[in-house]
Amino acid sequence: MLTYDFEKIDGPIYLYIYQCIKDDILSGVLKPGEKLPSKRSFANNNGISTITIQNAYDQLISEGYIYTRPKKGYYVARIEGLQRIPKQKDVHYDIEIPKKKEFRYDISSNGINSDNFPFSVWTKISRDVMSNRKEDLMEISPTSGVLCLRQAIADHLKSFRGMLVDPDQIVVGAGTEYLYGVIIQLLGQKVYAIENPGYKKLTMIYGQRGIDCRYAVMDDDGVTVPGLEETGADVAHICPNHHFPTGITMPASRRYEILAWAKAGEGRYIIEDDYDSEFRLEGKPIPTLFSIDGSEKVIYMNTFSKSLSPTIRISYMVLPVHLANLFYREMSFYSCTVSNFEQYTLAQFISQGYFEKHINRMRLYYIRQRKRILKALKASGLIEKCGIRENGSGLHFLLKLDTSKSDQEVEAELEEEGIKIRALSDYYLTEGDNRQHYFIVNYSDLTEDDMEKVAGALFRVLQ
Amino acid sequence: MLTYDFEKIDGPIYLYIYQCIKDDILSGVLKPGEKLPSKRSFANNNGISTITIQNAYDQLISEGYIYTRPKKGYYVARIEGLQRIPKQKDVHYDIEIPKKKEFRYDISSNGINSDNFPFSVWTKISRDVMSNRKEDLMEISPTSGVLCLRQAIADHLKSFRGMLVDPDQIVVGAGTEYLYGVIIQLLGQKVYAIENPGYKKLTMIYGQRGIDCRYAVMDDDGVTVPGLEETGADVAHICPNHHFPTGITMPASRRYEILAWAKAGEGRYIIEDDYDSEFRLEGKPIPTLFSIDGSEKVIYMNTFSKSLSPTIRISYMVLPVHLANLFYREMSFYSCTVSNFEQYTLAQFISQGYFEKHINRMRLYYIRQRKRILKALKASGLIEKCGIRENGSGLHFLLKLDTSKSDQEVEAELEEEGIKIRALSDYYLTEGDNRQHYFIVNYSDLTEDDMEKVAGALFRVLQ
Repeated sequence: MLTYDFEKIDGPIYLYIYQCIKDDILSGVLKPGEKLPSKRSFANNNGISTITIQNAYDQLISEGYIYTRPKKGYYVARIEGLQRIPKQKDVHYDIEIPKKKEFRYDISSNGINSDNFPFSVWTKISRDVMSNRKEDLMEISPTSGVLCLRQAIADHLKSFRGMLVDPDQIVVGAGTEYLYGVIIQLLGQKVYAIENPGYKKLTMIYGQRGIDCRYAVMDDDGVTVPGLEETGADVAHICPNHHFPTGITMPASRRYEILAWAKAGEGRYIIEDDYDSEFRLEGKPIPTLFSIDGSEKVIYMNTFSKSLSPTIRISYMVLPVHLANLFYREMSFYSCTVSNFEQYTLAQFISQGYFEKHINRMRLYYIRQRKRILKALKASGLIEKCGIRENGSGLHFLLKLDTSKSDQEVEAELEEEGIKIRALSDYYLTEGDNRQHYFIVNYSDLTEDDMEKVAGALFRVLQ
Repeated sequence: MLTYDFEKIDGPIYLYIYQCIKDDILSGVLKPGEKLPSKRSFANNNGISTITIQNAYDQLISEGYIYTRPKKGYYVARIEGLQRIPKQKDVHYDIEIPKKKEFRYDISSNGINSDNFPFSVWTKISRDVMSNRKEDLMEISPTSGVLCLRQAIADHLKSFRGMLVDPDQIVVGAGTEYLYGVIIQLLGQKVYAIENPGYKKLTMIYGQRGIDCRYAVMDDDGVTVPGLEETGADVAHICPNHHFPTGITMPASRRYEILAWAKAGEGRYIIEDDYDSEFRLEGKPIPTLFSIDGSEKVIYMNTFSKSLSPTIRISYMVLPVHLANLFYREMSFYSCTVSNFEQYTLAQFISQGYFEKHINRMRLYYIRQRKRILKALKASGLIEKCGIRENGSGLHFLLKLDTSKSDQEVEAELEEEGIKIRALSDYYLTEGDNRQHYFIVNYSDLTEDDMEKVAGALFRVLQ
């Protein structure tokens, strides 16, 4: 007779009985072919209604753990496809996971503020999508993403960036890092140039894929043509709209020079990484390279990691027409890397105007953040010992500190105070004449209190 | 004075007014600094309450389109970061997207049935996750995936596959295709062997990444050691548990031979692709290669594409300990490619027992499907002119047709009847002695009516 402990039940009794019997079957306590007690005797023995036992048995039957023989009773099935294993402890091996140092304040990154993620709208839309688009959700997505998301992105690019784009030029993927890999497959193994100073992670991403990645010199207008020429690269991966970490926005004249560079070589391309254009805080926007490119030389990339949340893995690129054709010809066998559920949710979020509202709200929020940190720097007395270099875009500026301490010394002293700060010089990818005393201040995610603490600590460093 | 057409309003009036004014600002009809009508006069003029106008103005203020000067009124803001562009038509270029031929019945694939996706539970859990795990959802996931999902997968592998795995050995990614790319980066550019016959897509995936991919001969027990030796490959990508399309399950003896092959060379590895082990319909399960591998030579891969839906892009691999360490050391800079929202939803789906229930339900469903199609083949009189080769696993079997027609002729005749069928010979990756007259019959997604039609058409082909 089965006896289970009915004292510590949390939830419906029938589920508890079901689980107990299943566990006994899986662990071999109950053997294949063994007869289970009748409903009535099981019920009487434990002071439970026969309906409850019936429900538990029905569940076990529907999942194939037991079977019934008419007028004979219930028997344990020979479980096919399952291995009976004894209850074992969890496995633990010595796998060393690099630990990231924890800081109380982090002003180093190009991160965003995620506290303002529009949870209620997102939840509402995703529920809508799940109840009203069941068929679409189960239909395999084209490699480039579902059409309604690509259409929503094209509409957004038109109204927000003045870009005229066919949805079929758009390829949606699980993050820009993934899309870089697609580009490498599309363009072949060429020499790539990235900006110096620039984003070290790009070197690692290209390096991991066996790409020869070189560094192109920048001046105050962004990457230079002689800089690109010198690398011998075919593909220039650049951030002309808001460079990280310098904050430089490439002026129109330089944009045309760079386009001319691309046009001069048949296999040359530009990857225009427009990672945070949504958060331009002031000043006239400059048309994207993609918009002014008449020669199909520019691949435009953007991501919802910055504008929504880095934990939603949706980015996209816009391919020139001939590359879009190449993509469909050569790479249609790939599956899209973003789930339909999130593609349709995002599509509706954009097309119903919520994305624009969110961006507007966040832009105002970041403007206030910038005012706050400037106020905090002023209040600390620091403002007289430093200069601020910014171009009114994005979520950070550069602070020039009037100090004879090396950048490493400044970083180390602030680390003592729980502050993570990075110098511009950390972003130079080559040794040499790297600008000292410039520090990145990302203010996106600090409270007013944090800002005071950070400003105070900076002040002490300058003493 | 602003005048808008209030006849065709769909939704709240204040939103309509808000949208009209915003459009006028964006298109330049309303210029920066221009004064808007007072709430009262706007309201009176259009027979609307001032509260409605107030709401519209408030929305515009909160989004930064207009501003208010105390006691003076409302003014159009200088919109920063937005480009005023005239309304334009949609762009359309000639981008040729390869069209897939539509068939009424498709028995060719290794697809699944998605009608039974557990929408209500999935919706419930994803709503739970969004209301109760907001912080977790915004916290950037480790490269390998969030711990609670990896823990849930480890628990599932233990109870379902008898595999003892540390969650830190598990790497979650947006589809197996993506994970193959990770493996290539992890192992370096080696020679890979895939099974012949086998999955053509693998050739394309490896080819796109510049990998030298060769074909290893199979016999009735699966891939052979001489076959692997002959390729000169270092990495064997194989499906020992249920090979597609042959359906072969590699017996234990061959498994040990293959492991010995891997052990004999330092850089040798086995990728064990276990894409549909959940749907083993009968027979004793054979332990995975991963479980019996004592030399850290096996990378185990599986996906939720088959067990849940191909439109949810979540797959995972289990790395041997030394490769897990290498992964964390070399590739921690990558972002995880699966969104937190779906990672947490799936984690809860598994850990609350819904995944197991779903699999059990689907297994019963597929067993019924198999019975139905066998019945339909019998009823059509076809069963006497064909043989069935299957091993009780997965969602397809091989049908041997007693015909002198070539495989291409059979395929073409059935195509005429709207049926997509593929021969085993289509899956041979090399020319030569390829078995004729074997056809894949995937019964996962056919109705009983479909089955009758397909059986009838097959019968006619044999006349």
